[in-house]
Amino acid sequence: MIFSSTLLENAVNEFAKLPGIGKKTALRLVLHLIKQNQKEVTQFSETIAAMRNEIKFCTRCHNISDKLLCNICSNSSRKQDVICVVESIRDVIAIESTQQFNGTFHVLGGVISPLDGVGPDQLNIEPLIQRIAQENTQELIFALNPNIQGDTTVYYISRKLKGASIKITTIARGISFGGELEYADEMTLAKSISNRIPIEHYINAIN
Amino acid sequence: MIFSSTLLENAVNEFAKLPGIGKKTALRLVLHLIKQNQKEVTQFSETIAAMRNEIKFCTRCHNISDKLLCNICSNSSRKQDVICVVESIRDVIAIESTQQFNGTFHVLGGVISPLDGVGPDQLNIEPLIQRIAQENTQELIFALNPNIQGDTTVYYISRKLKGASIKITTIARGISFGGELEYADEMTLAKSISNRIPIEHYINAIN
Repeated sequence: MIFSSTLLENAVNEFAKLPGIGKKTALRLVLHLIKQNQKEVTQFSETIAAMRNEIKFCTRCHNISDKLLCNICSNSSRKQDVICVVESIRDVIAIESTQQFNGTFHVLGGVISPLDGVGPDQLNIEPLIQRIAQENTQELIFALNPNIQGDTTVYYISRKLKGASIKITTIARGISFGGELEYADEMTLAKSISNRIPIEHYINAIN
Repeated sequence: MIFSSTLLENAVNEFAKLPGIGKKTALRLVLHLIKQNQKEVTQFSETIAAMRNEIKFCTRCHNISDKLLCNICSNSSRKQDVICVVESIRDVIAIESTQQFNGTFHVLGGVISPLDGVGPDQLNIEPLIQRIAQENTQELIFALNPNIQGDTTVYYISRKLKGASIKITTIARGISFGGELEYADEMTLAKSISNRIPIEHYINAIN
């Protein structure tokens, strides 16, 4: 792409650095911003800069936060003794958006994946073990993705907590609501049969 | 989507205002920026702000420019007496990227489209007529999209220039290079037959 303006070219290059955004999309975004009034574009750029400069990570659960302790950890109406272990901040947002969980989180920052060079030391696993030792945690819920890396991480942390008097669970795996048996993969279908649940639990869950 | 941080939420909302970017994509972009170091994000936001605040439109051709006269208009090695009329800045970039055109441009800023409420007065048509009257323009090449609006605009401007001693052409329409006759629409195929070109021109064009 050949530009007649360096300002335009620089802006397009900056947008094109973002994941999933190529040069053509970047150009479309930049031409959109040129059409907006100056105040709105200033607001856009200042909001992004402020976000990066001022954002913190909660010292307790490693979630993104505006303060040292995030809204969830500092909310006394939530069950502070229930910890949901997730891979990333994105999972926190997904679970929070269901409005069905009233405990706290612990963001690992990834999962154990030797092939990608990610071992337990690069993750927030040790802080989790310490947190459980210090706090009077009643239940640990694993909400990791159902793949080898996720399962390895669940296994590793469970082993570390062997002997601790704490209830450890994982979120249910099975056929999605609205999913069709015919199109489910064999593994999911098999697991959903072996982990079948009493009908009264199911009825409670859908009510 | 429920966020535990206002800074995060504001940044996601700003990205989600851009065309074609929904909340999930916006979140992905923002989480990417959080992982980058502060310097890079500052550069991103400053480049965007500078682009919007400092960018100008060339007073002669209405192309985006860093100065009052764009690089193309101020380049004496280009044929200043040949004007290629285009709809938008995007078309200038597309034509410049071919590196085959050595004249100047005139950006209309749209095409005549009564249904969308766009009349000749909202476009840079009058400045084009004046520019041709003032300059010793030899040739006007229309490079507008081949649809009703584009053709209406070509017709309108040609009528305005009736009597002026200027060569007026439009870019060739036909089957794309690499295109297949079988899949071409009837209109394009019919036009490509009625506007057939001498074989020696064709051979020159592909060499």
